[in-house]
Amino acid sequence: MSPVKLNGPRLLKTLEELSNIGRQPDGGISRFTLTQADIEARRYVSELMRESGLEVRVDPFANIIGRLDGSSRDAPAVACGSHIDTVSHGGFLDGAYGVMSGIEALRSVHEQDLKTKAPLEVVVFTEEEGVRFPSFIGSMGLTGLMRKEEAYALKDQNGITFEQALREAGLDASTLSQVHRGRSEIRAYLELHIEQGPILEQEQIPIGVVTSIVGLAELTVVLEGSVGHAGTTPMSLRRDPMLTAARIILGVNEIARRSKSGSVATVGSVNVSPNATNVIPGNVTLCIDFRDPRIKGLQYLREEMVALVNRVTAEDRIKVRIDEKSFTKPALMSQKVVDVIEASAQSLGLRYKLMHSGAGHDCQNMAQFTETGMIFVPSNEGTSHNPRESTAPQHLEAGVNVLLNTLLQLGNQ
Amino acid sequence: MSPVKLNGPRLLKTLEELSNIGRQPDGGISRFTLTQADIEARRYVSELMRESGLEVRVDPFANIIGRLDGSSRDAPAVACGSHIDTVSHGGFLDGAYGVMSGIEALRSVHEQDLKTKAPLEVVVFTEEEGVRFPSFIGSMGLTGLMRKEEAYALKDQNGITFEQALREAGLDASTLSQVHRGRSEIRAYLELHIEQGPILEQEQIPIGVVTSIVGLAELTVVLEGSVGHAGTTPMSLRRDPMLTAARIILGVNEIARRSKSGSVATVGSVNVSPNATNVIPGNVTLCIDFRDPRIKGLQYLREEMVALVNRVTAEDRIKVRIDEKSFTKPALMSQKVVDVIEASAQSLGLRYKLMHSGAGHDCQNMAQFTETGMIFVPSNEGTSHNPRESTAPQHLEAGVNVLLNTLLQLGNQ
Repeated sequence: MSPVKLNGPRLLKTLEELSNIGRQPDGGISRFTLTQADIEARRYVSELMRESGLEVRVDPFANIIGRLDGSSRDAPAVACGSHIDTVSHGGFLDGAYGVMSGIEALRSVHEQDLKTKAPLEVVVFTEEEGVRFPSFIGSMGLTGLMRKEEAYALKDQNGITFEQALREAGLDASTLSQVHRGRSEIRAYLELHIEQGPILEQEQIPIGVVTSIVGLAELTVVLEGSVGHAGTTPMSLRRDPMLTAARIILGVNEIARRSKSGSVATVGSVNVSPNATNVIPGNVTLCIDFRDPRIKGLQYLREEMVALVNRVTAEDRIKVRIDEKSFTKPALMSQKVVDVIEASAQSLGLRYKLMHSGAGHDCQNMAQFTETGMIFVPSNEGTSHNPRESTAPQHLEAGVNVLLNTLLQLGNQ
Repeated sequence: MSPVKLNGPRLLKTLEELSNIGRQPDGGISRFTLTQADIEARRYVSELMRESGLEVRVDPFANIIGRLDGSSRDAPAVACGSHIDTVSHGGFLDGAYGVMSGIEALRSVHEQDLKTKAPLEVVVFTEEEGVRFPSFIGSMGLTGLMRKEEAYALKDQNGITFEQALREAGLDASTLSQVHRGRSEIRAYLELHIEQGPILEQEQIPIGVVTSIVGLAELTVVLEGSVGHAGTTPMSLRRDPMLTAARIILGVNEIARRSKSGSVATVGSVNVSPNATNVIPGNVTLCIDFRDPRIKGLQYLREEMVALVNRVTAEDRIKVRIDEKSFTKPALMSQKVVDVIEASAQSLGLRYKLMHSGAGHDCQNMAQFTETGMIFVPSNEGTSHNPRESTAPQHLEAGVNVLLNTLLQLGNQ
């Protein structure tokens, strides 16, 4: 079969249109789950799906599913997708590229009348980044790794539940439908994404075929000391949670550096209360993000992190609460899907490289549910989660052509 | 002269009314300089001053001055005062107690027709806490320690200048008047305040007569590293300013603990950008507050803090900018005023204690300008800058009676 190609400029245009929703003065994009910007982006994406000939439904986890029927009625679908929520001041490609590419690929199938046996779907997963609620609500929900009741009880920093947030976004029970009822309904899942690392750029290779994805976990650590006046409280009488936080930050770094298996660990978020120059803080909350390619390594890291926090807080006489915000196992991609992606890249004459992903993705959860594969394109300077995030247009186009041909191949098997 | 007493319940009522302006759901009070809550509080206080028979003017630093003329025309004034801005989620007494007591004291002089030779004044100083702009703008302005042009150029976190903030609050040149033109116009200054420490409560003494006030300085340290993805950036390639911040926080603490002269040092405020769990921060900004009773000690601390920050940032390859946000020398109170406060307490039959203040106050600046004294009342549990801040009503009343009698004594000298 000779490879099919699609309308690249149109993809770039829709990516740009989406990027203007939630754009901040510094050029970064802030679209947090079910906030005004996300709701507007959801409207834009749903409308674009309909224009592209897709049937659009929203499931109980607020995942948006656009579907193009196949020639074989009731055959399980071949799906692709990603997310449109962003980190704070993020870039225009992380997540969005996978979604807009999926829509463009299905639109090409529709417009060019490229029939497949299986229905094709593009899924917008809810809350991938974990900024407002814990990460991966959408993919955990769709794959049955999280029950609806669990998801609906999750709260954001202001105590608003996911259920309330859905209702405030106009998504109540009457608008939501159970789109998928189990593994038998999705035969394969593909995710196209920027690499978010420097390897493809350095090696000048346009396509990465992902074989495994890092395991990742997040702990939220809430430290409580004694609030006090910075001038009238002698050093010897203080219980200052900022000092404990500093010791944890340094300890977390040491644990990851000691590891020989490629572990990473980061404290990227610290919130201080009352956060005033002249007040010894009463509370400091920090989040520890740690990752390892092997499940054993991830479990070992978790034990080490919890032991560190317990030891330091006991020594400092600081009250502590540790919440496990997420724990996502490392995932192997399906050999069958990897083979089809490789064949698609070859047929398009594109160089590719088999690689590991250090970033987490919804397809980790999908891998527990169906045959899953992931395609990378280069990230300029390896940068992501940042307004500087970018990828050359020819690479963006190469990626979506690999996606399209892989979907067609899988959809006709 | 037998001591005069005033209307205590009325003082408590006005304190309570003021406390409802800027009140937060947790009971704390947030009134930051020239924000809506502060503007409302300024209106309330000005109105109360007029009701109390005072002439009200606002000077170019937005200090509010309420004045009661004396029998001797053109005699220099005897002033008292404090501030009505608060820390974030602060209490109802810090600052407010000194202002409302001053108004109540002058109102009693007016109502009871207790003539003084000197005019009496109550001053509300602008921006004592340093939450929105740097600390002590009002008292530095009034005493000539800061020029109007310097003050007007100061910016808040959003880049709004003090001058813009004044205009937005409806305080432009036409409403402001140069109330004081130099030292010769204020003969003495008194500040009544809660102790903000545990000593008076522990020793069950209702009145503290302050003899000296701590020197204090604040440094803002802006750290810039390389923002990056928490999953795809290997530990060895990171330049993470959070680690540098942690080392500085621990180093600041060590410096103060090594000191033998009663130094304290605190990092109470840390702001991280972008502050997301899965992003290695690009920037961390922290504030170091340090204090020492002696000017040499304060200068030594400054040298140590700057050396620490420069050493750690160089080692970590982190870009740094250090801004000196404030540097206020330790101050000795006037022996003459201390003597009159002691005599007032004695005449009221109140036990008192000579003491040092570990908290900074506007009277530190006033002490460089005129004969200055400070009166403390106990703080329950030594707590301040906190919704739990409180003092027994009889202590609040005792303090204001000492203030009143000291004003009368000084006003008739």
